[in-house]
Amino acid sequence: MLHLKATSPERWLHQVRDHLDEILIDHAHCEKKAAGTAMNLMFAYVENEQLCRDMTEIVKEELDHFHLVIELLKGRGIRFRRLKPSAYGRRLNELIRKMEPQRAVDRLLVAALIEARSCERFDLLRQHVGDPQLADFYDSLFETEARHHSTYIRLAHLFTTVENVEERLDELAEAEARIIMEGEVMPRMHS
Amino acid sequence: MLHLKATSPERWLHQVRDHLDEILIDHAHCEKKAAGTAMNLMFAYVENEQLCRDMTEIVKEELDHFHLVIELLKGRGIRFRRLKPSAYGRRLNELIRKMEPQRAVDRLLVAALIEARSCERFDLLRQHVGDPQLADFYDSLFETEARHHSTYIRLAHLFTTVENVEERLDELAEAEARIIMEGEVMPRMHS
Repeated sequence: MLHLKATSPERWLHQVRDHLDEILIDHAHCEKKAAGTAMNLMFAYVENEQLCRDMTEIVKEELDHFHLVIELLKGRGIRFRRLKPSAYGRRLNELIRKMEPQRAVDRLLVAALIEARSCERFDLLRQHVGDPQLADFYDSLFETEARHHSTYIRLAHLFTTVENVEERLDELAEAEARIIMEGEVMPRMHS
Repeated sequence: MLHLKATSPERWLHQVRDHLDEILIDHAHCEKKAAGTAMNLMFAYVENEQLCRDMTEIVKEELDHFHLVIELLKGRGIRFRRLKPSAYGRRLNELIRKMEPQRAVDRLLVAALIEARSCERFDLLRQHVGDPQLADFYDSLFETEARHHSTYIRLAHLFTTVENVEERLDELAEAEARIIMEGEVMPRMHS
Protein backbone atom coordinates (compact mmCIF):
# COMPACT_ATOMS: atom_id res chain seq x y z
CA MET A 1 0.00 0.00 0.00
CA LEU A 2 2.81 2.43 0.86
CA HIS A 3 4.98 1.59 -2.18
CA LEU A 4 8.14 1.32 -0.07
CA LYS A 5 10.97 -0.94 -1.26
CA ALA A 6 12.66 -1.50 2.11
CA THR A 7 11.60 -1.71 5.73
CA SER A 8 13.50 0.45 8.21
CA PRO A 9 16.65 -1.22 9.50
CA GLU A 10 17.03 -2.27 13.15
CA ARG A 11 19.77 0.38 13.39
CA TRP A 12 17.13 3.13 13.30
CA LEU A 13 15.26 1.65 16.27
CA HIS A 14 18.53 1.82 18.23
CA GLN A 15 18.83 5.51 17.34
CA VAL A 16 15.27 6.02 18.58
CA ARG A 17 15.98 4.18 21.82
CA ASP A 18 19.14 6.20 22.52
CA HIS A 19 18.00 9.65 21.28
CA LEU A 20 14.23 9.83 21.63
CA ASP A 21 14.25 13.54 22.56
CA GLU A 22 16.12 14.50 19.40
CA ILE A 23 13.85 12.31 17.24
CA LEU A 24 10.80 14.06 18.76
CA ILE A 25 12.23 17.52 18.06
CA ASP A 26 13.05 16.49 14.50
CA HIS A 27 9.51 15.13 14.17
CA ALA A 28 8.10 18.61 14.91
CA HIS A 29 10.33 20.06 12.19
CA CYS A 30 9.21 17.34 9.76
CA GLU A 31 5.55 18.22 10.30
CA LYS A 32 6.32 21.89 9.65
CA LYS A 33 8.26 20.98 6.50
CA ALA A 34 5.40 18.78 5.29
CA ALA A 35 3.08 21.79 5.60
CA GLY A 36 5.63 23.89 3.69
CA THR A 37 5.91 21.31 0.90
CA ALA A 38 2.15 21.26 0.41
CA MET A 39 2.04 25.07 0.38
CA ASN A 40 4.86 25.21 -2.19
CA LEU A 41 3.04 22.74 -4.43
CA MET A 42 -0.06 24.90 -4.21
CA PHE A 43 1.95 27.97 -5.25
CA ALA A 44 3.56 26.07 -8.15
CA TYR A 45 0.30 24.64 -9.54
CA VAL A 46 -2.23 27.21 -8.37
CA GLU A 47 -4.38 26.87 -11.47
CA ASN A 48 -5.06 23.22 -10.63
CA GLU A 49 -8.15 23.37 -8.46
CA GLN A 50 -8.09 19.76 -7.24
CA LEU A 51 -4.45 20.08 -6.23
CA CYS A 52 -5.16 23.33 -4.38
CA ARG A 53 -8.00 21.73 -2.43
CA ASP A 54 -5.92 18.72 -1.45
CA MET A 55 -2.88 20.81 -0.56
CA THR A 56 -5.02 23.09 1.63
CA GLU A 57 -6.22 20.09 3.60
CA ILE A 58 -2.68 18.74 3.96
CA VAL A 59 -1.27 22.14 5.04
CA LYS A 60 -3.91 22.38 7.77
CA GLU A 61 -3.41 18.83 9.00
CA GLU A 62 0.39 19.04 9.05
CA LEU A 63 0.24 22.33 10.97
CA ASP A 64 -2.06 20.65 13.49
CA HIS A 65 0.43 17.79 13.80
CA PHE A 66 3.26 20.28 14.31
CA HIS A 67 1.41 21.77 17.27
CA LEU A 68 0.62 18.30 18.65
CA VAL A 69 4.33 17.45 18.68
CA ILE A 70 5.14 20.84 20.28
CA GLU A 71 2.60 20.09 23.04
CA LEU A 72 4.08 16.64 23.52
CA LEU A 73 7.57 18.15 23.86
CA LYS A 74 6.28 20.64 26.43
CA GLY A 75 4.60 17.89 28.41
CA ARG A 76 7.94 16.08 28.57
CA GLY A 77 9.98 19.17 29.43
CA ILE A 78 11.93 19.00 26.16
CA ARG A 79 12.87 22.41 24.75
CA PHE A 80 11.95 22.73 21.07
CA ARG A 81 14.95 24.05 19.16
CA ARG A 82 16.44 24.21 15.69
CA LEU A 83 18.13 21.01 14.50
CA LYS A 84 20.31 20.24 11.53
CA PRO A 85 17.96 18.32 9.24
CA SER A 86 18.77 14.86 7.93
CA ALA A 87 19.97 14.64 4.32
CA TYR A 88 16.97 12.44 3.43
CA GLY A 89 14.66 15.18 2.09
CA ARG A 90 17.42 16.98 0.22
CA ARG A 91 18.65 13.77 -1.41
CA LEU A 92 15.15 12.89 -2.56
CA ASN A 93 14.50 16.39 -3.84
CA GLU A 94 17.67 16.20 -5.93
CA LEU A 95 15.99 13.43 -7.95
CA ILE A 96 13.19 15.73 -9.11
CA ARG A 97 13.34 16.34 -12.86
CA LYS A 98 13.53 19.95 -14.01
CA MET A 99 11.04 20.05 -16.89
CA GLU A 100 7.27 20.12 -16.56
CA PRO A 101 5.15 18.04 -16.37
CA GLN A 102 7.81 15.56 -15.13
CA ARG A 103 8.71 18.00 -12.39
CA ALA A 104 5.17 18.03 -11.01
CA VAL A 105 5.01 14.22 -11.12
CA ASP A 106 8.32 13.89 -9.27
CA ARG A 107 7.49 16.50 -6.65
CA LEU A 108 4.23 14.72 -5.88
CA LEU A 109 5.79 11.25 -5.85
CA VAL A 110 8.68 12.34 -3.62
CA ALA A 111 6.15 13.88 -1.22
CA ALA A 112 4.18 10.61 -1.37
CA LEU A 113 7.27 8.57 -0.49
CA ILE A 114 8.21 10.82 2.42
CA GLU A 115 4.67 10.44 3.79
CA ALA A 116 4.95 6.68 3.28
CA ARG A 117 8.25 6.45 5.15
CA SER A 118 6.86 8.56 8.01
CA CYS A 119 3.93 6.21 8.13
CA GLU A 120 6.10 3.11 8.24
CA ARG A 121 8.13 4.68 11.04
CA PHE A 122 5.08 5.74 13.05
CA ASP A 123 4.01 2.12 12.87
CA LEU A 124 7.40 0.95 14.14
CA LEU A 125 7.40 3.60 16.84
CA ARG A 126 3.95 2.70 18.11
CA GLN A 127 5.10 -0.92 18.42
CA HIS A 128 8.51 -0.27 19.96
CA VAL A 129 8.38 2.80 22.23
CA GLY A 130 7.50 1.43 25.65
CA ASP A 131 5.36 4.46 26.50
CA PRO A 132 1.56 4.30 26.12
CA GLN A 133 1.16 8.08 25.64
CA LEU A 134 3.69 8.09 22.80
CA ALA A 135 2.29 4.90 21.28
CA ASP A 136 -1.20 6.46 21.17
CA PHE A 137 0.27 9.60 19.67
CA TYR A 138 1.98 7.77 16.81
CA ASP A 139 -1.12 5.69 16.30
CA SER A 140 -3.19 8.86 15.90
CA LEU A 141 -0.88 10.20 13.19
CA PHE A 142 -0.55 6.96 11.21
CA GLU A 143 -3.86 7.09 9.39
CA THR A 144 -3.63 10.73 8.31
CA GLU A 145 -0.15 10.32 6.86
CA ALA A 146 -1.24 7.19 4.98
CA ARG A 147 -4.08 9.23 3.48
CA HIS A 148 -1.62 11.99 2.48
CA HIS A 149 0.48 9.36 0.71
CA SER A 150 -2.55 8.29 -1.34
CA THR A 151 -3.48 11.90 -2.08
CA TYR A 152 -0.05 12.67 -3.53
CA ILE A 153 -0.10 9.52 -5.69
CA ARG A 154 -3.60 10.36 -6.93
CA LEU A 155 -2.55 13.92 -7.83
CA ALA A 156 0.48 12.67 -9.82
CA HIS A 157 -2.06 11.09 -12.21
CA LEU A 158 -3.32 14.57 -13.12
CA PHE A 159 0.04 15.24 -14.78
CA THR A 160 0.84 11.99 -16.62
CA THR A 161 -0.38 8.47 -17.49
CA VAL A 162 -0.97 5.62 -15.05
CA GLU A 163 2.00 3.76 -16.59
CA ASN A 164 4.34 6.73 -16.17
CA VAL A 165 3.29 7.20 -12.54
CA GLU A 166 3.88 3.51 -11.84
CA GLU A 167 7.27 3.44 -13.52
CA ARG A 168 8.54 6.63 -11.91
CA LEU A 169 7.19 5.71 -8.49
CA ASP A 170 9.11 2.44 -8.79
CA GLU A 171 12.36 4.27 -9.64
CA LEU A 172 11.97 6.84 -6.87
CA ALA A 173 11.01 4.17 -4.33
CA GLU A 174 14.20 2.26 -5.22
CA ALA A 175 16.23 5.43 -4.61
CA GLU A 176 14.38 6.12 -1.37
CA ALA A 177 15.09 2.60 -0.13
CA ARG A 178 18.81 2.99 -0.90
CA ILE A 179 18.95 6.28 1.06
CA ILE A 180 17.16 4.68 4.02
CA MET A 181 19.41 1.60 3.99
CA GLU A 182 22.50 3.83 3.98
CA GLY A 183 21.13 5.71 6.98
CA GLU A 184 22.71 8.62 8.85
CA VAL A 185 24.65 9.03 12.06
CA MET A 186 22.47 11.94 13.30
CA PRO A 187 19.34 10.50 14.92
CA ARG A 188 16.36 11.80 12.93
CA MET A 189 12.84 10.78 11.86
CA HIS A 190 14.30 9.78 8.49
CA SER A 191 17.86 8.78 9.48
CA MET B 1 -7.32 51.45 14.18
CA LEU B 2 -5.70 50.29 10.94
CA HIS B 3 -2.69 52.63 11.16
CA LEU B 4 -3.03 53.73 7.54
CA LYS B 5 -1.78 57.18 6.53
CA ALA B 6 -3.90 57.63 3.40
CA THR B 7 -7.31 56.53 2.19
CA SER B 8 -7.47 54.86 -1.23
CA PRO B 9 -7.79 57.38 -4.06
CA GLU B 10 -10.93 57.63 -6.21
CA ARG B 11 -8.77 56.41 -9.10
CA TRP B 12 -8.71 52.90 -7.63
CA LEU B 13 -12.51 52.72 -7.52
CA HIS B 14 -12.52 53.51 -11.25
CA GLN B 15 -10.12 50.62 -11.82
CA VAL B 16 -12.48 48.36 -9.86
CA ARG B 17 -15.48 49.54 -11.86
CA ASP B 18 -13.74 48.95 -15.20
CA HIS B 19 -11.82 45.72 -14.38
CA LEU B 20 -13.72 43.88 -11.67
CA ASP B 21 -12.86 40.43 -13.06
CA GLU B 22 -9.13 41.11 -12.94
CA ILE B 23 -9.40 42.54 -9.42
CA LEU B 24 -11.21 39.38 -8.31
CA ILE B 25 -8.57 37.11 -9.82
CA ASP B 26 -5.83 39.18 -8.17
CA HIS B 27 -7.74 38.94 -4.90
CA ALA B 28 -7.48 35.14 -5.01
CA HIS B 29 -3.72 35.42 -5.53
CA CYS B 30 -3.48 37.89 -2.62
CA GLU B 31 -5.18 35.43 -0.25
CA LYS B 32 -2.77 32.70 -1.34
CA LYS B 33 0.19 35.06 -0.84
CA ALA B 34 -1.09 36.04 2.61
CA ALA B 35 -1.09 32.34 3.57
CA GLY B 36 2.44 32.01 2.18
CA THR B 37 3.66 35.04 4.16
CA ALA B 38 2.32 33.59 7.42
CA MET B 39 3.92 30.22 6.63
CA ASN B 40 7.28 31.88 5.87
CA LEU B 41 7.15 33.78 9.17
CA MET B 42 6.50 30.52 10.97
CA PHE B 43 9.53 28.93 9.28
CA ALA B 44 11.72 31.94 10.12
CA TYR B 45 10.75 32.14 13.82
CA VAL B 46 9.75 28.55 14.53
CA GLU B 47 11.08 28.63 18.10
CA ASN B 48 8.57 31.36 18.99
CA GLU B 49 5.53 29.42 20.12
CA GLN B 50 3.06 32.31 20.19
CA LEU B 51 4.05 33.36 16.69
CA CYS B 52 3.66 29.77 15.43
CA ARG B 53 0.17 29.54 16.92
CA ASP B 54 -0.94 32.83 15.40
CA MET B 55 0.62 32.07 12.02
CA THR B 56 -1.09 28.67 11.92
CA GLU B 57 -4.45 30.35 12.42
CA ILE B 58 -3.71 32.94 9.73
CA VAL B 59 -2.48 30.32 7.22
CA LYS B 60 -5.71 28.37 7.67
CA GLU B 61 -7.96 31.41 7.38
CA GLU B 62 -6.19 32.81 4.32
CA LEU B 63 -6.36 29.43 2.58
CA ASP B 64 -10.10 29.35 3.32
CA HIS B 65 -10.43 32.85 1.84
CA PHE B 66 -8.50 31.75 -1.24
CA HIS B 67 -11.04 28.98 -1.83
CA LEU B 68 -13.93 31.38 -1.21
CA VAL B 69 -12.64 33.68 -3.94
CA ILE B 70 -12.09 30.69 -6.28
CA GLU B 71 -15.72 29.64 -5.70
CA LEU B 72 -16.90 33.18 -6.35
CA LEU B 73 -14.95 33.26 -9.63
CA LYS B 74 -16.49 29.95 -10.68
CA GLY B 75 -19.97 31.19 -9.84
CA ARG B 76 -19.36 34.15 -12.15
CA GLY B 77 -17.81 32.12 -14.96
CA ILE B 78 -14.43 33.84 -14.57
CA ARG B 79 -11.47 31.57 -15.28
CA PHE B 80 -8.84 31.74 -12.52
CA ARG B 81 -5.43 32.30 -14.08
CA ARG B 82 -1.97 33.59 -13.29
CA LEU B 83 -1.62 37.38 -13.20
CA LYS B 84 1.38 39.65 -13.03
CA PRO B 85 1.28 40.87 -9.41
CA SER B 86 1.21 44.55 -8.51
CA ALA B 87 4.51 46.07 -7.33
CA TYR B 88 2.91 46.92 -3.95
CA GLY B 89 4.08 43.85 -1.99
CA ARG B 90 7.56 43.86 -3.51
CA ARG B 91 8.04 47.57 -2.79
CA LEU B 92 6.99 47.13 0.83
CA ASN B 93 9.18 44.06 1.27
CA GLU B 94 12.17 46.06 0.02
CA LEU B 95 11.83 48.24 3.13
CA ILE B 96 12.45 45.30 5.48
CA ARG B 97 15.72 45.69 7.37
CA LYS B 98 18.24 42.87 7.06
CA MET B 99 19.42 42.39 10.67
CA GLU B 100 17.49 40.65 13.42
CA PRO B 101 15.49 41.53 15.45
CA GLN B 102 14.68 44.53 13.21
CA ARG B 103 13.97 42.16 10.37
CA ALA B 104 11.29 40.32 12.35
CA VAL B 105 9.69 43.62 13.41
CA ASP B 106 9.60 44.87 9.82
CA ARG B 107 8.28 41.64 8.36
CA LEU B 108 5.44 41.64 10.89
CA LEU B 109 4.64 45.34 10.44
CA VAL B 110 4.67 45.10 6.64
CA ALA B 111 2.29 42.13 6.89
CA ALA B 112 0.14 44.20 9.28
CA LEU B 113 -0.03 47.10 6.81
CA ILE B 114 -0.93 44.86 3.88
CA GLU B 115 -3.78 43.39 5.96
CA ALA B 116 -4.84 46.91 6.89
CA ARG B 117 -4.91 48.08 3.28
CA SER B 118 -6.89 44.99 2.23
CA CYS B 119 -9.31 45.78 5.01
CA GLU B 120 -9.73 49.39 3.95
CA ARG B 121 -10.34 48.24 0.39
CA PHE B 122 -12.86 45.56 1.39
CA ASP B 123 -14.72 48.33 3.16
CA LEU B 124 -14.68 50.50 0.03
CA LEU B 125 -15.69 47.55 -2.13
CA ARG B 126 -18.63 46.57 0.07
CA GLN B 127 -19.88 50.16 -0.20
CA HIS B 128 -19.28 50.69 -3.90
CA VAL B 129 -19.82 47.45 -5.82
CA GLY B 130 -23.48 47.49 -6.78
CA ASP B 131 -23.82 43.74 -6.28
CA PRO B 132 -25.31 42.35 -3.05
CA GLN B 133 -23.51 38.97 -3.32
CA LEU B 134 -20.13 40.67 -3.68
CA ALA B 135 -20.91 43.25 -0.98
CA ASP B 136 -21.75 40.42 1.47
CA PHE B 137 -18.57 38.63 0.47
CA TYR B 138 -16.31 41.61 1.19
CA ASP B 139 -18.22 42.24 4.38
CA SER B 140 -17.49 38.68 5.52
CA LEU B 141 -13.74 39.10 4.96
CA PHE B 142 -13.41 42.53 6.57
CA GLU B 143 -13.43 41.44 10.20
CA THR B 144 -10.94 38.58 9.81
CA GLU B 145 -8.40 40.74 7.99
CA ALA B 146 -8.73 43.46 10.66
CA ARG B 147 -7.98 40.81 13.27
CA HIS B 148 -4.93 39.66 11.30
CA HIS B 149 -3.70 43.25 11.27
CA SER B 150 -3.92 43.38 15.08
CA THR B 151 -2.22 39.99 15.42
CA TYR B 152 0.79 41.09 13.38
CA ILE B 153 1.14 44.33 15.38
CA ARG B 154 0.88 42.40 18.65
CA LEU B 155 3.55 39.93 17.53
CA ALA B 156 5.96 42.74 16.59
CA HIS B 157 6.01 43.60 20.30
CA LEU B 158 7.64 40.23 21.02
CA PHE B 159 10.75 41.45 19.20
CA THR B 160 11.19 45.06 20.37
CA THR B 161 9.83 47.83 22.64
CA VAL B 162 6.44 49.53 22.34
CA GLU B 163 8.19 52.75 21.32
CA ASN B 164 10.17 51.05 18.56
CA VAL B 165 7.06 49.37 17.18
CA GLU B 166 5.21 52.67 17.15
CA GLU B 167 8.04 54.56 15.48
CA ARG B 168 8.71 51.92 12.83
CA LEU B 169 5.01 51.39 12.13
CA ASP B 170 4.73 55.13 11.56
CA GLU B 171 7.64 55.11 9.06
CA LEU B 172 6.38 52.06 7.19
CA ALA B 173 2.82 53.40 7.10
CA GLU B 174 4.14 56.63 5.54
CA ALA B 175 5.94 54.60 2.86
CA GLU B 176 2.84 52.46 2.29
CA ALA B 177 0.69 55.57 1.83
CA ARG B 178 3.14 56.97 -0.74
CA ILE B 179 3.06 53.70 -2.73
CA ILE B 180 -0.76 53.67 -2.65
CA MET B 181 -1.02 57.34 -3.69
CA GLU B 182 1.30 56.70 -6.64
CA GLY B 183 -0.85 53.77 -7.72
CA GLU B 184 -0.37 51.48 -10.69
CA VAL B 185 -1.84 51.20 -14.16
CA MET B 186 -2.57 47.46 -13.82
CA PRO B 187 -5.86 47.01 -11.96
CA ARG B 188 -5.09 45.06 -8.79
CA MET B 189 -6.28 44.71 -5.17
CA HIS B 190 -3.39 46.97 -4.15
CA SER B 191 -2.98 49.15 -7.29
